[in-house]
Amino acid sequence: MPLDPAARARAVEPFHVMRVLARAQALEAQGRDVVHMEVGEPDFPTPDPVVRAAAAALAAGQTRYTPAAGLPALRAAIAAYYAERFGVRVSPARIIVTPGSSLALQLALLALVDPDDDVLLCDPGYPCNRHLVRLAGGRVVPVPLGAESGYRPTPAQVAAAWTARTKALLVASPANPTGTVIDRAAMADLHLVVAARDGMLVVDELYQGLVYEAEPFTALELGDDVIVVNGFSKYFGMTGWRVGWIVVPERFADVVDRLAQNLYLAAPTVAQHAAVAALAPDTRALLDARRDVLRVRRDRLRAGLERLGFTFTAPPEGAFYLYADCSARAADSFALAESLLTEAGVAVTPGADFGANRPSSHVRFAYTTDGARLDEGLRRIAAWLGR
Amino acid sequence: MPLDPAARARAVEPFHVMRVLARAQALEAQGRDVVHMEVGEPDFPTPDPVVRAAAAALAAGQTRYTPAAGLPALRAAIAAYYAERFGVRVSPARIIVTPGSSLALQLALLALVDPDDDVLLCDPGYPCNRHLVRLAGGRVVPVPLGAESGYRPTPAQVAAAWTARTKALLVASPANPTGTVIDRAAMADLHLVVAARDGMLVVDELYQGLVYEAEPFTALELGDDVIVVNGFSKYFGMTGWRVGWIVVPERFADVVDRLAQNLYLAAPTVAQHAAVAALAPDTRALLDARRDVLRVRRDRLRAGLERLGFTFTAPPEGAFYLYADCSARAADSFALAESLLTEAGVAVTPGADFGANRPSSHVRFAYTTDGARLDEGLRRIAAWLGR
Repeated sequence: MPLDPAARARAVEPFHVMRVLARAQALEAQGRDVVHMEVGEPDFPTPDPVVRAAAAALAAGQTRYTPAAGLPALRAAIAAYYAERFGVRVSPARIIVTPGSSLALQLALLALVDPDDDVLLCDPGYPCNRHLVRLAGGRVVPVPLGAESGYRPTPAQVAAAWTARTKALLVASPANPTGTVIDRAAMADLHLVVAARDGMLVVDELYQGLVYEAEPFTALELGDDVIVVNGFSKYFGMTGWRVGWIVVPERFADVVDRLAQNLYLAAPTVAQHAAVAALAPDTRALLDARRDVLRVRRDRLRAGLERLGFTFTAPPEGAFYLYADCSARAADSFALAESLLTEAGVAVTPGADFGANRPSSHVRFAYTTDGARLDEGLRRIAAWLGR
Repeated sequence: MPLDPAARARAVEPFHVMRVLARAQALEAQGRDVVHMEVGEPDFPTPDPVVRAAAAALAAGQTRYTPAAGLPALRAAIAAYYAERFGVRVSPARIIVTPGSSLALQLALLALVDPDDDVLLCDPGYPCNRHLVRLAGGRVVPVPLGAESGYRPTPAQVAAAWTARTKALLVASPANPTGTVIDRAAMADLHLVVAARDGMLVVDELYQGLVYEAEPFTALELGDDVIVVNGFSKYFGMTGWRVGWIVVPERFADVVDRLAQNLYLAAPTVAQHAAVAALAPDTRALLDARRDVLRVRRDRLRAGLERLGFTFTAPPEGAFYLYADCSARAADSFALAESLLTEAGVAVTPGADFGANRPSSHVRFAYTTDGARLDEGLRRIAAWLGR
């Protein structure tokens, strides 16, 4: 009998969004037009100053390994960014650069979890989190988020779910798929309840620059005893470059550095040089203008969906997603996503990607495509609903 | 009590080579001259055609996510490379691109190992392997390699070490740190003994292009039921670009693709476009010329070290390392490496990085620097030994 893949690996579910995307592309190959509201990658190109910095690094032959923890100039630039934009002092020694923020999440989990430890995860939440916990040998304890708490975990939920084996609570702000932002006071409450139990608060701030109303804020303000994950893919417009980072308490830095050496050796060198340019004030002015475009798209798409009977019980304040309750219009979000794709030519992501908490009542719309296409998508959905 | 890093993560040892490198750089900062024979990165720049392809991809805005399994053109180019150079047909569907070969090793282990499964690893061997096995929840079963078998694992050793929980044997050819090549017949024997036990043979072929006498060969010749790990860092001269790949049996492809989506999302896009150019015949002619330079260095360094009393009981036939038995000249390789660095200004890696199999009798010399510097290193070692 030839060996089969391991049971744990087989249990890793596919992303429905990837299947939706593949099927949408297959339809396009047949000549169909599809409005893409499924993809977590905005339509903006990488900013010019970043591309120019990459070209300069290439021309200068900057293509050798960097240290595992990252290019010293990039670690220093990230520290300076925290100081300048958020008024928080973070030593570069606490910052480890990663090849994308997925590896930052993996570093965090491997640094925290021994086999059979528990990790509290928000449901709905980023689909990879639960798989990364299990691949690290940990157990997932879901914290179901509901409209009544604005899709935010409450200290009471965390306290109730905590066990003797719980090591960490992982939250994202802004969150995927809900766009929910956890404000400073709420984050401080979560930090307190976790710290009181000798656990670690891990905050995924990948969508940090994409907050539309609230004041900029990082959980690093709360003290040195949190882990923060971030990256250059979303706000900074560098999806395919694969550069992220993690900030850890000082006593974790050496362990995380050693994990990095073993897990990935180093992040791509040219992309790290380019990322330094992404943090420069001129680039950020450009990125903030893009954020304003995204806000306009959000408002337009949300109003359009509400007119069609989709509801939003908590305001989507960040990222580029709307997590819509579709139960007034469809019994099952999976079937709805299927029909919208094949019958209406609109690609959306069913709730099933994001957990086990009422997934069939929700679909995720991404406003990563331009306003005219979003309008076209709304028009098609309206026509399909009125069929 | 604030939470400490997990016990398993704390047990990940640092690479001594990184400490040697850091101390060498500190000495250099004080004005000392150090001959670097510790680093696993040759002094050659990335080939021009590769840099040009990267610049073209950048200019064309090729900076968005690729599919997790990699750019289709790169997967096709790797398949074509196997066909043309090795005469082996490999479907692109079996090839998954990774951000560096470390992640290819991690994919292989996570695809094979459930908690408490065993993996057989060669000792001495690449230091990350044992940590990656443990981080995947597996147990390391060392196969001690000795001079009597030319630092190659024997089928009898594999059979003796195999247990009911063993899933795989991981071998590297050419190997780090020994430079040993496992030939076609020996690899076939290992494949047979593993297949007879319903296990998987995993072959790390990262140094594949750097074989100095033997005919080119890939373990994929043995059939579809092996896993091969490779990458663009060593032979192809693309260390800081972070592109590797894994070839898996067809029934593993979907599971490995899903693992890739969760673990790293995608490899860097510009680097993947550049890697296509690395496989082109013109680039490979240039790379083969570099390989010939490395062979000359190897012969010169080996002869010089033998004159100084270091011995090589198995011929180093590939990679860019010499694993020298230093027991005739020093009681402890760790102290020897320390003294060579601080007293002679020559950086080498002590055997302790590579396992528990007589590490204090061995040091690794890398011929990643040019011939004149290797001569200078030999001169310094001779002077120090004769002190």
